[in-house]
Amino acid sequence: MLEKNIKDQPPIDYQALVDAVLDDASNYRGHGDVAAYLPALAQVNPNKLGIALAAGDGNVYVAGDADEPFSMQSISTIFTLSLTFSHVGGALWNHVGREPAGAPFNALVQLEEEKGKPRNPLINSGAIVVCDQLIGRDTADEAVDEILDFLRERSGDESIDIDQNVVMSESTAGSLNRSLAHFLAAWGNLTNPVEDVLSVWFRQCAIRMSCRQLARAGLYLAFDGMDPITKAEVCLPSRSRRINALMLTSGHYDNSGDFAFRIGLPGKSGSGGGILATIPGIGAVAVWSPGLNAARTSLAGAVALEKLVERTGWSVFV
Amino acid sequence: MLEKNIKDQPPIDYQALVDAVLDDASNYRGHGDVAAYLPALAQVNPNKLGIALAAGDGNVYVAGDADEPFSMQSISTIFTLSLTFSHVGGALWNHVGREPAGAPFNALVQLEEEKGKPRNPLINSGAIVVCDQLIGRDTADEAVDEILDFLRERSGDESIDIDQNVVMSESTAGSLNRSLAHFLAAWGNLTNPVEDVLSVWFRQCAIRMSCRQLARAGLYLAFDGMDPITKAEVCLPSRSRRINALMLTSGHYDNSGDFAFRIGLPGKSGSGGGILATIPGIGAVAVWSPGLNAARTSLAGAVALEKLVERTGWSVFV
Amino acid sequence: MLEKNIKDQPPIDYQALVDAVLDDASNYRGHGDVAAYLPALAQVNPNKLGIALAAGDGNVYVAGDADEPFSMQSISTIFTLSLTFSHVGGALWNHVGREPAGAPFNALVQLEEEKGKPRNPLINSGAIVVCDQLIGRDTADEAVDEILDFLRERSGDESIDIDQNVVMSESTAGSLNRSLAHFLAAWGNLTNPVEDVLSVWFRQCAIRMSCRQLARAGLYLAFDGMDPITKAEVCLPSRSRRINALMLTSGHYDNSGDFAFRIGLPGKSGSGGGILATIPGIGAVAVWSPGLNAARTSLAGAVALEKLVERTGWSVFV
Amino acid sequence: MLEKNIKDQPPIDYQALVDAVLDDASNYRGHGDVAAYLPALAQVNPNKLGIALAAGDGNVYVAGDADEPFSMQSISTIFTLSLTFSHVGGALWNHVGREPAGAPFNALVQLEEEKGKPRNPLINSGAIVVCDQLIGRDTADEAVDEILDFLRERSGDESIDIDQNVVMSESTAGSLNRSLAHFLAAWGNLTNPVEDVLSVWFRQCAIRMSCRQLARAGLYLAFDGMDPITKAEVCLPSRSRRINALMLTSGHYDNSGDFAFRIGLPGKSGSGGGILATIPGIGAVAVWSPGLNAARTSLAGAVALEKLVERTGWSVFV
Repeated sequence: MLEKNIKDQPPIDYQALVDAVLDDASNYRGHGDVAAYLPALAQVNPNKLGIALAAGDGNVYVAGDADEPFSMQSISTIFTLSLTFSHVGGALWNHVGREPAGAPFNALVQLEEEKGKPRNPLINSGAIVVCDQLIGRDTADEAVDEILDFLRERSGDESIDIDQNVVMSESTAGSLNRSLAHFLAAWGNLTNPVEDVLSVWFRQCAIRMSCRQLARAGLYLAFDGMDPITKAEVCLPSRSRRINALMLTSGHYDNSGDFAFRIGLPGKSGSGGGILATIPGIGAVAVWSPGLNAARTSLAGAVALEKLVERTGWSVFV
Repeated sequence: MLEKNIKDQPPIDYQALVDAVLDDASNYRGHGDVAAYLPALAQVNPNKLGIALAAGDGNVYVAGDADEPFSMQSISTIFTLSLTFSHVGGALWNHVGREPAGAPFNALVQLEEEKGKPRNPLINSGAIVVCDQLIGRDTADEAVDEILDFLRERSGDESIDIDQNVVMSESTAGSLNRSLAHFLAAWGNLTNPVEDVLSVWFRQCAIRMSCRQLARAGLYLAFDGMDPITKAEVCLPSRSRRINALMLTSGHYDNSGDFAFRIGLPGKSGSGGGILATIPGIGAVAVWSPGLNAARTSLAGAVALEKLVERTGWSVFV
Repeated sequence: MLEKNIKDQPPIDYQALVDAVLDDASNYRGHGDVAAYLPALAQVNPNKLGIALAAGDGNVYVAGDADEPFSMQSISTIFTLSLTFSHVGGALWNHVGREPAGAPFNALVQLEEEKGKPRNPLINSGAIVVCDQLIGRDTADEAVDEILDFLRERSGDESIDIDQNVVMSESTAGSLNRSLAHFLAAWGNLTNPVEDVLSVWFRQCAIRMSCRQLARAGLYLAFDGMDPITKAEVCLPSRSRRINALMLTSGHYDNSGDFAFRIGLPGKSGSGGGILATIPGIGAVAVWSPGLNAARTSLAGAVALEKLVERTGWSVFV
Repeated sequence: MLEKNIKDQPPIDYQALVDAVLDDASNYRGHGDVAAYLPALAQVNPNKLGIALAAGDGNVYVAGDADEPFSMQSISTIFTLSLTFSHVGGALWNHVGREPAGAPFNALVQLEEEKGKPRNPLINSGAIVVCDQLIGRDTADEAVDEILDFLRERSGDESIDIDQNVVMSESTAGSLNRSLAHFLAAWGNLTNPVEDVLSVWFRQCAIRMSCRQLARAGLYLAFDGMDPITKAEVCLPSRSRRINALMLTSGHYDNSGDFAFRIGLPGKSGSGGGILATIPGIGAVAVWSPGLNAARTSLAGAVALEKLVERTGWSVFV
């Protein structure tokens, strides 16, 4: 954003900011419901609350449980989408749309109406298509390795890994996702066998990362596709913008409009209680608290982001 | 947006910019279909193309048919929403939601599923609810006068008025909107008689404004609710941000995701071929060309905005 | 039905039968909910219960409140359909289908999906289309007179008339039906003005008939279109069969399958608590009790018909 | 059906009847489309046409290709439903409804809306639930054996068997059915593993029977559950009536209303081109011709049944 008059603004103390935001959101610890559909997620302590702000200068400011890894769940789709976008380019949009999905009770009828082409890559059916496209002519294991390598490189942390308990839990409880995947296959929108595609998706969702790792990994999306620390060109500027646009319009299932309305930042929530948000030109922020609202967005996490924007004016709509 | 490094950017020549963008989009003049559902709109010359950029310093830069008034149609909802928001505040959200609507074939079933509460104020059913709330305890005529006064003041142009031919055309061809309004009434979500509410909506949609007037009128939404020229506090900063958020997630019917994806600015399109977009911190831009894409967004207009962002980087996602 | 072996069956005492059936159903008097959406219906005594069986020999056997007129509501559609069918013949099916409608929450989306062509004539949208076709080039008042004349002739009772309180109640509370009618108009499926068509429908629904009158009036549908007493050929045999088929597949909104399953006779229920059923080759039966089940079928009335079939084996599926 | 005056009717020559009906329908041989979704079905000669009428006296009257076995596909559900009904009784209705399904594009949204409970047993999702209930605590192989034994006994023909090519074809092309089955499992409406249930369904659908065998096997449904030849009480009279009711309201997917309207007999069509219809009190008729209409009902087969009813008046609505 050019030419804004910034001269009158005092510099922000980022550490004080994240401390204050953690404090703001603390009253909401334990509110909402921990995801019950996966036994492995249901056991997490609902009072956890962490925040990390990765700035463009390489510093990561943290507060609370910011170094405790949690299950990324569908936040992972943002990174898989970056990778897949790099591989297949605009051909991805032959397989998945980019419009908000509307109410969740429409998910299947929309998929049917639109002949097996999911509305966008950030709903479950779309994420499954993205996994299929990432596999391409490789194997499922190679695709998973590529995702892990990407996340380790982006966060600068080789310790990032998959929680095998969660993978098993996902697969056992995965009837609805199996139903979606076979439906996509019925419409000819999967090129790999259903169980291969699901095995990538289940493992991708089961990757554990801390707020610190996640904020650091997402930094390139706040800087037009370029990692501001390593100067790596992670994705094209146009693609970075488009991923942000998708996060803003569709990053939180049927809560996306409300999130844009209250917070005004591109974000992606996961049912493990994490949210990744990008602040274009400034940095990336990750919050984590396991209690979810009705649309499976972290309740205390969304409050923390709301307070962050109130304290800073960092909405994209200012 | 704070702290962005802007020092390396050369100053932009806004007049050259709008000229170039007009040129970029000229190849698309006449593409798409002029709205056929209203005889009064169907007669417009499809080759019209105009653009106006209102900057924070009070200058408005124009090119092409930027001084020719056209039918605002649902762009008007942005201003009615501002007004209504000021009157009833957050109580508005008891009557209308703020989530993207999903595919158009779901419009009615969603309205039924959600018990007569439209998904957001920028789809037809939601805009009808906004009109009803604006009337409140006044008369329909008073509500229309209030809208006209607001637009004349915001654009600094007393000549803005309603096209009575279009009003008649809207009312005659208004079966679908009548159906929606009676449906809202059946769910108890209208406080005024259906024909009163529709009379406000039909007249509001039939207001004629030029690109120049429209860009000027929308300027407050790019400056956190304050008109940067008159310093009038048109709406609260939080409400300005929220209207921008709604424009970004829901401003173009079933093309909203694509618009965010390609252009990355809050915008609202009207079936008269106009689009209003806000560039937070910089200005407001209005484009007009009557040919529409399948989702009733101006085809050449959207191209013009896409080129504007390509040339400037003025996406909110950078 | 030919060649059935009937020689071993003792003759049935019809008066004893209707007395016994009334007794069977008496425990269900007052069960269910009286239609609350119309003030004029809501005032009816919920304990009313009547039954009338019109036999092919001209006798009508009654029990309980069989001589008290009640609001026919959508039972009237059966007769309007007969009349309209006679006027326009098979061309009717260009305007309305003949498939069951499925779940009620789909009513509007189906209407949209099928481009304003209702699924069948026995759901509200379809009945409105039938009224429009009956009007044809006549006036609304003439169409209503034609319906009244038909019912008076078929029942042999000149006293049958419209309850004007119910008409006013219908019109005041008619938002949902207005919504449907404007929706049909939006798709070009009404040839007369919406309020004209609704005025026929509201009046038709507000006709009052007793069980005795209703059973007598429906007799021609049990005898292949010919009134067995007067020998009048009321409608073609093929049309009589088809009206029965529509009653069986679609006569009770989302309870049609259950009604066929439990009772096995063509029937049509009205929200006033009446049900008309035909027993092909034997007669017509009308029951009335105001308490409705969730799908707006008379609860005690359906029990009475179930018991009637249990006691006689008069299911069409035996 | 009691007391009908049958004395004036001449006796019907059944052999002449089926010959005439075959002749009536011959012009429609090859019309419609042979099911293309299964390679094994797509190879069938589209000009085949057969008819068999099994009468209550034990005679089966045939014409055309009535002794050539064809793939029953979902006609088989009628028999599996009889068997399952006998095992689990009314508890079946906790797992599946009995209302017509409405338009096919609603299939999935209805299944979601009604929390994984299919609308009726004769649509695919419902038939899968019936298979699951038939397995119960047995194995899939035992359930298939039970179905085969039942069909062999009912038709008095031990040669009836499964076409293994069709089973393989079904399983390979079974993505949509897998999707449905996993969806049912997600809602907790399957007690056995998805692939076990599907293996029963795929094999059941792949059973080959001729018109002669099929008409004979269905005879008990025309005689209130009792085989008129062997006097075996195959199912309770109330269940026989209910299966007929389901056939009438839901036996032909989205063509059920039209079938009732034109033919007026309980029937079930299969995508292999067969139709089984029951004529209560008289007999059972099976027709076969592979060309299907848009709703996957045999086109020439439906014409044959329509002519049969025209020639005899054997509609249940007379």
